[in-house]
Amino acid sequence: MARPVTLFTGQWADLPLETVAEKAAGWGYDGLELACWGDHFEVDKALADDSYIQSRRDILEQHGLKCWAISTHLVGQCVCDDPIDARHMGIVPSRIWGNGDAEGVRQRAAEEVKNTARAAAEFGVEIVNGFTGSTIWKYLAMFPPVPPEMIAAGYKDFADRWNPILDVFDQVGVKFALEVHPSEIAFDFWSAKRTLEAIGSRQAFGFNFDPSHLYWQMVSPEAFIYEFGERIYHMHVKESVRQLDGRNGVLGSLLFFGDHRRGWDFVSPGRGGVPFERVFRALNDVGYDGPLSVEWEDNGMTRDQGAPEALALCRRLDLTPSGQAFDAAFASKD
Amino acid sequence: MARPVTLFTGQWADLPLETVAEKAAGWGYDGLELACWGDHFEVDKALADDSYIQSRRDILEQHGLKCWAISTHLVGQCVCDDPIDARHMGIVPSRIWGNGDAEGVRQRAAEEVKNTARAAAEFGVEIVNGFTGSTIWKYLAMFPPVPPEMIAAGYKDFADRWNPILDVFDQVGVKFALEVHPSEIAFDFWSAKRTLEAIGSRQAFGFNFDPSHLYWQMVSPEAFIYEFGERIYHMHVKESVRQLDGRNGVLGSLLFFGDHRRGWDFVSPGRGGVPFERVFRALNDVGYDGPLSVEWEDNGMTRDQGAPEALALCRRLDLTPSGQAFDAAFASKD
Amino acid sequence: MARPVTLFTGQWADLPLETVAEKAAGWGYDGLELACWGDHFEVDKALADDSYIQSRRDILEQHGLKCWAISTHLVGQCVCDDPIDARHMGIVPSRIWGNGDAEGVRQRAAEEVKNTARAAAEFGVEIVNGFTGSTIWKYLAMFPPVPPEMIAAGYKDFADRWNPILDVFDQVGVKFALEVHPSEIAFDFWSAKRTLEAIGSRQAFGFNFDPSHLYWQMVSPEAFIYEFGERIYHMHVKESVRQLDGRNGVLGSLLFFGDHRRGWDFVSPGRGGVPFERVFRALNDVGYDGPLSVEWEDNGMTRDQGAPEALALCRRLDLTPSGQAFDAAFASKD
Amino acid sequence: MARPVTLFTGQWADLPLETVAEKAAGWGYDGLELACWGDHFEVDKALADDSYIQSRRDILEQHGLKCWAISTHLVGQCVCDDPIDARHMGIVPSRIWGNGDAEGVRQRAAEEVKNTARAAAEFGVEIVNGFTGSTIWKYLAMFPPVPPEMIAAGYKDFADRWNPILDVFDQVGVKFALEVHPSEIAFDFWSAKRTLEAIGSRQAFGFNFDPSHLYWQMVSPEAFIYEFGERIYHMHVKESVRQLDGRNGVLGSLLFFGDHRRGWDFVSPGRGGVPFERVFRALNDVGYDGPLSVEWEDNGMTRDQGAPEALALCRRLDLTPSGQAFDAAFASKD
Amino acid sequence: MARPVTLFTGQWADLPLETVAEKAAGWGYDGLELACWGDHFEVDKALADDSYIQSRRDILEQHGLKCWAISTHLVGQCVCDDPIDARHMGIVPSRIWGNGDAEGVRQRAAEEVKNTARAAAEFGVEIVNGFTGSTIWKYLAMFPPVPPEMIAAGYKDFADRWNPILDVFDQVGVKFALEVHPSEIAFDFWSAKRTLEAIGSRQAFGFNFDPSHLYWQMVSPEAFIYEFGERIYHMHVKESVRQLDGRNGVLGSLLFFGDHRRGWDFVSPGRGGVPFERVFRALNDVGYDGPLSVEWEDNGMTRDQGAPEALALCRRLDLTPSGQAFDAAFASKD
Amino acid sequence: MARPVTLFTGQWADLPLETVAEKAAGWGYDGLELACWGDHFEVDKALADDSYIQSRRDILEQHGLKCWAISTHLVGQCVCDDPIDARHMGIVPSRIWGNGDAEGVRQRAAEEVKNTARAAAEFGVEIVNGFTGSTIWKYLAMFPPVPPEMIAAGYKDFADRWNPILDVFDQVGVKFALEVHPSEIAFDFWSAKRTLEAIGSRQAFGFNFDPSHLYWQMVSPEAFIYEFGERIYHMHVKESVRQLDGRNGVLGSLLFFGDHRRGWDFVSPGRGGVPFERVFRALNDVGYDGPLSVEWEDNGMTRDQGAPEALALCRRLDLTPSGQAFDAAFASKD
Repeated sequence: MARPVTLFTGQWADLPLETVAEKAAGWGYDGLELACWGDHFEVDKALADDSYIQSRRDILEQHGLKCWAISTHLVGQCVCDDPIDARHMGIVPSRIWGNGDAEGVRQRAAEEVKNTARAAAEFGVEIVNGFTGSTIWKYLAMFPPVPPEMIAAGYKDFADRWNPILDVFDQVGVKFALEVHPSEIAFDFWSAKRTLEAIGSRQAFGFNFDPSHLYWQMVSPEAFIYEFGERIYHMHVKESVRQLDGRNGVLGSLLFFGDHRRGWDFVSPGRGGVPFERVFRALNDVGYDGPLSVEWEDNGMTRDQGAPEALALCRRLDLTPSGQAFDAAFASKD
Repeated sequence: MARPVTLFTGQWADLPLETVAEKAAGWGYDGLELACWGDHFEVDKALADDSYIQSRRDILEQHGLKCWAISTHLVGQCVCDDPIDARHMGIVPSRIWGNGDAEGVRQRAAEEVKNTARAAAEFGVEIVNGFTGSTIWKYLAMFPPVPPEMIAAGYKDFADRWNPILDVFDQVGVKFALEVHPSEIAFDFWSAKRTLEAIGSRQAFGFNFDPSHLYWQMVSPEAFIYEFGERIYHMHVKESVRQLDGRNGVLGSLLFFGDHRRGWDFVSPGRGGVPFERVFRALNDVGYDGPLSVEWEDNGMTRDQGAPEALALCRRLDLTPSGQAFDAAFASKD
Repeated sequence: MARPVTLFTGQWADLPLETVAEKAAGWGYDGLELACWGDHFEVDKALADDSYIQSRRDILEQHGLKCWAISTHLVGQCVCDDPIDARHMGIVPSRIWGNGDAEGVRQRAAEEVKNTARAAAEFGVEIVNGFTGSTIWKYLAMFPPVPPEMIAAGYKDFADRWNPILDVFDQVGVKFALEVHPSEIAFDFWSAKRTLEAIGSRQAFGFNFDPSHLYWQMVSPEAFIYEFGERIYHMHVKESVRQLDGRNGVLGSLLFFGDHRRGWDFVSPGRGGVPFERVFRALNDVGYDGPLSVEWEDNGMTRDQGAPEALALCRRLDLTPSGQAFDAAFASKD
Repeated sequence: MARPVTLFTGQWADLPLETVAEKAAGWGYDGLELACWGDHFEVDKALADDSYIQSRRDILEQHGLKCWAISTHLVGQCVCDDPIDARHMGIVPSRIWGNGDAEGVRQRAAEEVKNTARAAAEFGVEIVNGFTGSTIWKYLAMFPPVPPEMIAAGYKDFADRWNPILDVFDQVGVKFALEVHPSEIAFDFWSAKRTLEAIGSRQAFGFNFDPSHLYWQMVSPEAFIYEFGERIYHMHVKESVRQLDGRNGVLGSLLFFGDHRRGWDFVSPGRGGVPFERVFRALNDVGYDGPLSVEWEDNGMTRDQGAPEALALCRRLDLTPSGQAFDAAFASKD
Repeated sequence: MARPVTLFTGQWADLPLETVAEKAAGWGYDGLELACWGDHFEVDKALADDSYIQSRRDILEQHGLKCWAISTHLVGQCVCDDPIDARHMGIVPSRIWGNGDAEGVRQRAAEEVKNTARAAAEFGVEIVNGFTGSTIWKYLAMFPPVPPEMIAAGYKDFADRWNPILDVFDQVGVKFALEVHPSEIAFDFWSAKRTLEAIGSRQAFGFNFDPSHLYWQMVSPEAFIYEFGERIYHMHVKESVRQLDGRNGVLGSLLFFGDHRRGWDFVSPGRGGVPFERVFRALNDVGYDGPLSVEWEDNGMTRDQGAPEALALCRRLDLTPSGQAFDAAFASKD
Repeated sequence: MARPVTLFTGQWADLPLETVAEKAAGWGYDGLELACWGDHFEVDKALADDSYIQSRRDILEQHGLKCWAISTHLVGQCVCDDPIDARHMGIVPSRIWGNGDAEGVRQRAAEEVKNTARAAAEFGVEIVNGFTGSTIWKYLAMFPPVPPEMIAAGYKDFADRWNPILDVFDQVGVKFALEVHPSEIAFDFWSAKRTLEAIGSRQAFGFNFDPSHLYWQMVSPEAFIYEFGERIYHMHVKESVRQLDGRNGVLGSLLFFGDHRRGWDFVSPGRGGVPFERVFRALNDVGYDGPLSVEWEDNGMTRDQGAPEALALCRRLDLTPSGQAFDAAFASKD
C-alpha cells in the first residue's frame, strides 16, 4: 500500500537481467534492487561504457520497473575480511581476485566499492547496499581469551579501510548501507552501535535493515529500528525461522542451509518468525519511506513460487499511518 | 550424595596448588581436577622428575583430596587451531609457543598432549580433559558461501592430527575427553556427532560433558547425554545464563564476559539456566559414575563465594537411583 | 458466513452518515451500528422530529444496510463518572454539558440515556450499547489504602444511578449493553461479576463484548464468554496488541495511542493478539447470533485500508456449527 | 503445488459416493481416499462382483478424480481390540459383528482386512490405511501396576494377529499404513517404534502419518517424520487444537468432541496448532510424494465450509524443493 | 509451620510399620498416613482383634507420631474397575481376590471398604483415602465412537456401587476422600465435577487432593482447589515432572515410571513442576487445615534421601495467613 | 555478602520502634529504614525536641542497628494528589489533614516533606524515600480522550510543587528518592523518564528502586536499573507475583491484596517472580552500594515468618563482583 516493493536480484544472477525483469514485472513488483554481479549491474562496464547504464535503464523501463538501490555485497565482503580464501575466490570477478594475495584482494575490492558509488551516482540511485567483511568476526567464541585491544583493532581496521571509501560516497552524493549480518563488522545490536562509533557516525554510512539476520539471534528487529532509525537507508524483506528442538543449536552446526538439523534457516517471507507487521509499523515510526526489497532465499522451495508469495505478503501487511487520532471523531462539534 | 564432587583448578591457577587444595578441602570438596597450567600439574616436570608426581600426590593427600582427571585445555586448543595468533601466545608456555610459527605451534602442542597422556598414566588418572581447536570454526557464518569440501577438510584435519595422539592414549591406557565448546571441532550436538564419525568413533576419544556451553546455544543437555552417553568420560558443573532482552543477541556482540549487554554469560552454578537436576538424572541413566567437577566462572562474584555455593548445589541435587520400583511395595504378599 | 457483519460508526462520526453508509456498503458490510454522535443518530432529533428516524432508515435502505444496535458511549460515560472535567466537555453536546457542574452533567446524561432507549425503540432496534462511567475506577492503584466501603459505595452509586435508567429500558423493551472497558464500572472479569450483582442481575443490563479490552489485561476473552454468555447482547470486533519489551509497561505510561512505547495499543483486527477464531467458536457455544460489529481503531494505518480488511477477517473466520457429530458418518447402517 | 490433494471420504459416508465426488471435484480436489464404509468402497462387493470396482472408477473419472489409497479404519480396529463391545457393533457391518463374540469378531475382521488388501490390488491402489486396535491401550494409566510381561504380551498379540494379514498384503503387492492414534497399538513416538520392532520392521507395514494425533500429545510431528520417514506411506491433513486453560486437561475428561471443556479437540485444518508448513517441508526432506489427504473433523463448523478451506491451506503451504542452493547464484562466472 | 506433615506409608509397605515409624520420626515427621496394606493397618485384624488397633496406636505413640487418615487405594480400585485382571490380583489380599471372578472381586472389595470405614472409626480417624476404579476410564480415546449413554452408565455404575458404601461411612462418621487419578472415576477437573453430581454431592464423599496427577495433565492445581475446596478432605504432597521434548508424549507411551522417554513422571517433591507455594496458599484460602501428607514416588532416587527432603520442602513453603492487612500499619492513629 | 540488609519499618508501625528493633536485630538485620509514621521517626518531634533524635539513635545502637534512610511515603503522597479524600485522612496525622481542604492538605504536606529533609539531615541520613502523588494518574485509561495538555499539566504541577521542596533538600544535603509506584507521578519506565525531564533531572531527586511494582507491569527491573542507574539512591527488596489464569486481570479488579482473584499481588520475597539474582547483579553494574531494604507485604503469611525468610534470601543471592576476569588465571607466566 504505502511503499514500493522491489525484488533484490542477487539470488537470480544466474539469469539475464532481461529475464528477471520480465518475471518481476509479471508478478507485480514495482522495481528491482540490482545486484552488482551476474550481468545485472556491472560496475566496470557502467563506468567504461556510456551505453551500458542506458541499457539497464531500458530493460527496467520496458517492464515498468524502477530502481532505488544497487548492491555490492560480494565485493564489499572482501574489503576487511580475514582470512581471504577460496570462499572469496568463488564470488568475486577475477579482476578483483587477481593472484589471490589477501591484502591485494582487499585493496582491489575497496577500489571497486568506490567505483560502485560512482556508478550508482551515474545511474541515478542514492543507495549502495553491501557488506564490509571483518577481521574480528572469527573471534566470536572469545576463547582463547581475546585481549580488548584485538577487538578494538578490528573496529579500527574497519574505519581505516572504509573512511576513504566513504569519502568517495560523500563526493558523489551516495550512501552506503551495510547489511548487519554474521561475518560483517556489525552483526547485531551492540556491534552495530560500536561500528557507528568507529567512524564517528558519519552520514555516508548507514544500514540496509534486514530482520532475518537479527531474528534468529534473538535480537528484536523493532528494537533495532527504534535505536538506529535515522540510519536505516534501505531494507530487505527476508525471512528466517528458528527450529530449535533440543538437538539443533542456534549456531547451526556448520550444516548447509536447507538442512533440517540447523537450529535456524532462511525461508520464504511469511514462512518463518520475523514479525513483519510490527517491523513495517516501526519503519513508519522512524520515517522510512524507501522500498521494501524482497531478498528471497529458501532452499526448500522454488524461487518462482516464493517471489510472488513474498510480494503478496508485503502488499497485505504494509500500511500507511493515518496522521489522525482515531478518537478525534468523538469530538463534540456543536 | 552419589558421586564425588571435585573442583577444577583451571580458574585458580594464579594460586599455588597448595593454596587451592587447602581452600577446596576446607569447603568440603572430595577432590581436584588438576589443570596442566600454573604449577598445578606440569607435564614436563612430571615426565622429567620422579619426585614431581609424588609432590602432587602429597599435596592432595594432606588435604584428603582425590584426583580423577587432569586437564589440558589450553595446549590442546593449539593442535588444530587456525589462525594461531596472540591469543594462543598468551596461554601456552614459551616452549610450546617457540617462535610462534603456526604449524610449529600446532605440532609442539600435539607432542605435549601425547606427553600429557603419558604423565596422566604415571600419575594414575585415566582421563585427560581438553580442547582440540578447529580450522573450520571460523566459517560459522557460512558466508561467503562455504564449499562442502572445506567443511569436510576441517574434520579430516582434526582426524589427521588427533589419531596419532589418540594412539598414544591407547598405548598408555588413558582416554581423552573433549569439552564440547565454541571454537572446538565439536561445539554442539551435530558437530559432536560428525566429530566422532571423523575418527571412526574410537574408544580413546570421548567427551568432558559441560552443559553450560550447550544451554545458551539452546541445545538440550539431556538430549546430548542420551545420544552420547557412553562417550561421556567426565563432566563439568558449569553454569550459563541467557539474558536475551531484544537487544542482547545470542552471539554475544564481541563483548567480554561479565558485560550485561551480552546475550549469554557464564555464572556461578545455580544462578543460571542449566537444568542440573535433570542433568544428574540423565547421567545416572547412562551410567556415568565419575566426579561432578565444578568449573567456576562468573565475573560478577568472587570465586571464594562461588565455590562453596556450587558444591552445596551438587550435594543437594545429586541423587542415587533406587534400583527398585516405587510401586513394588503395593504387592500383596499373602 | 454465520453472522452479519456491521461497522460501528463511532470512529467515522466526522463524516456524514450518508458517506459512511456508502463506504460500508461498498466494502460489503451487512449493516451499521450507529453512534449517537456526529449526525449518525441524534437522540434529540429522533424524539422530536418524526421524519428524522425515517431519514436514517432511508440512508440505510438505499445502501442495503441493516441496523441491530445504536451506541451511546460518550454520554453514558458521564452518568457515573468522577471527576467530570474537560475530557467530558470535549465529547458531549453542549445541551448535556450545560454549565459543566458535575452533578448536573451526570443527571442530564442519565436523562439522555433514557431518551436513547426511547429513541431506539422507535427506531426498532433492541440494543443500546454504551459506557457507564465509574466513581471508583480512579482507585485502581489501591493506594492510599482504600477502605472496602469506598469500593462498595462505588458499585452502589452505579446501581442507584442506573436502576432508574434501566426501568425505562424495560418499559420500552430495549436492553443496555455495557462495553467492559477501563474507566467503566466493569473493566474486567471480576468487576463485571460484581457489577451484575450490584443491580440484581436484572435482564435489562448486559454486555457489549469487546475482546480488545480484555486481551491486553491478560483476561481470556473465551473465559469471559463462557461465564457471562447469556448476558452478551452485542459484540465488537476490535483488536489490541501487547508490545511488552521490558521497557514498555502494561499500564501504558500515560502515552497516547499509536506511540510505540505503550505496552499495549489498539490495532486493526487481525494485526494484534485477540484469538478471534476461538472467540467466534465460544460465541457459537453460548448461542450469540447477533452481529459482529467492527470497531476500528488503529493510529498506525488509515481506516479506509482497515475497514475492508477487518470485514474480510470476519468472513474468513466466522463459522456455523454443524449440528452433527463428525463421527456420525462412521455408523454402520446395514 | 507439489503434491496432489485428496479428500478422505470417511466423514462423508452418510452421502453416496456420487455426491461426495461431485462436491470434491467442485472444490478443486485432485482425488479421493475412499473409506471402506458407507457405499464408498465395499470390500465384499469389490471381490464378489466384477462390475463394482468399475463403478467406483467410473464415478471418479466422471469428476476427474484419482485415488491413491483406500481406508479400513473401522474394521481394522476390531482385529486386536479388547474389549469388543457396543462401540464396535456400531461401526462394523453385521457380517463382521456376527453374534458379537469377541474373538469371532476379531477373526472376521482380520479376514476382512486381508480381503481389503486383495480388493485394493484389484482396484489398483497400493495403500490401505487403517487402524489395528490394541489389547493394551487400556493400561495407559499404568495403575494398578502393570507387569512388563503384560505390555510385552500386547505387542506380541499384535504381531501374531497382523503378520498373517501382512503376508496377504505382500502377496498382492499392497502396503498397510497404520494411522498412529490413541486406542491403537501405536499411538505416539515410542509406541510406534516398539510396534515396528514387534513385526521385525517388515516393509508391508508403515504409517498413515496424521499430525493431529501427535500435536495434542505434545509429540513433534516433524520429529516423527524424521524418525519414521521411510515408513510414511500416506498422510492425513487433519488438525487439532489445545485449549488448556487450567481447568481443561489434556486427557479430555471423557467429554465429547466439540465440548469447549475438552483440553484438546479436532478442528478444521488451519484453525488449530499443527505446524503444517514445517510438516510439508519435513515430508519433502524424507521424500514423501504421495497425496495430502484431507481428513476433516470439526464439530464446530459445517463440513461444506471446511473442506474447501482445508484444500486452500494445502495449496498455499505445500512447496517444492528447489534442488539448488540459493547462494549458487553468487558464483562468479568470469 | 502451619500444618502437620505426615508420611503416607503406602510406598513403604514392604517394611514393618515399626521400622517406618522409626524412620519418619527420626526425620521429624509429625505423623503417618497408614496404608491398609502390608502390616501397616490391616482392616480384618482391626475389626477382629481388639488388641490390633491398640498395637498400631502404641507404635505411633512410641515415636511421637499422630495419624489423621488411613488409605485403601488398592482395594478401593477394585470396586468399580473393569476389566479385573492380573494387575488386581497382584495388589489385593487373597481373601478379596478369591477365585478372581470379576464381579465377586468387586463385591468383596466393596465390603472391605465398608469395613475400612468401620475400622477407621474404631481407630479414631475421620478420613479414609482411596481409589474407586472405573468402568469407563478405558474409553478415554473416545474411539471407536462412544455413545453418550456408555459414559453416563459409567458414572451411574459408580454411584450404584458407592452409595451403599458411603451409607456406612455416614453411619460411622467417617468420610471417603477419592484421590483424583488416572484410572479412577474422577481423573481431572471436569470428571471430578461430574463424579460429585453422580452421587448428589453427598458430604460423605470428597477428595484427597494430589496435585501431581493434575500437573502433568496441564490442569491447574489451584483451579481445582478453588472449585472443590470444601470437598478437600485430605492432601498429598506428591510431585510430577513434564519432560516433553518433541519425542516424549504426554500419554507416557506405555513405558514404566523412571524411563526417561516418558513424557511425564513422578519425582521427589521439589524436583518437578508442581507449584507447591501457590498450592499451600490456595489451601489456606479454602480453609484446609489437615495434614500435608507426603506420598513419595521417584524411581530415580532412594526413598531414604527423598523423604526428609520432602519434609523440608513442606516446612519451608507452608505458611500461616496473617489475618491482618499489611497496610493496616499505615493508619494514622493520632 | 556485599551490601547491608535493612528492614523497612513501615509495615510494623503498629509496634513501638523498640519492639521492631529487637525483632530485626534478633533475625540478623544490619539496620532499619525508619518510617515517618507510628512512633518510628516523628518529624515534628525530631525538629522540636533535641532529645528525640538521640532517643532513636539509642534504640538503634542498643540493638547494633544502623540507619541509611528514612521514609515519608504517606505524607509525600498528599503533595500532588488529586482528589484528596478519606483515603488520605486515614494515613496522615491530623496536623497535616487539618480541615481536609484539598489544597491546604497539599501545602501542609509539602512543608512536612521539607521538614523531613531537615530532620533527616539532623539525624545524619542522606536519603529520604517517599511518594509524590499525582494529578494525572487517574487518567490512566486515556478515555474519555485526554488532551496532551492535560498530561503536560500534570507533570508541570509536579515540578511546580516539588522544586521548592527539592531546594530545601539541596540546602541540607539530603536527597529525595521516589518509589516508582502506581498512583505516583512516575509509575513505570517511560513515566519515570518524563518525570526526570520535568524537573531538569536535578540531582536532589532520584529513585527508591522497588522491583515489585515493575514486575507485575511487565517492566523489566534490570532495564530500569541500566537506564536510571545513577539515580538509584536506595532500593527495596519487595516481591510481587502474577497470577494470571485467564480470569484474573493485570489491573487487579479493585480487589483487596490477598484475594486470589487479583491478577497480581504482593508476596514475601522469594515467593513471587522478581528476578532478584539479576537485580542484584545489575545494581552492582551501576555501582549501587547502599542497603538492600526489605519491605515486607504479604497478606498470606505472618510477617514474623516472612522477615527472616527475606533476610536469608538477600544473604544468599547478594554478591560481590570479583574485579578480575575469570580467564585471567589462564595466562601463561613463564
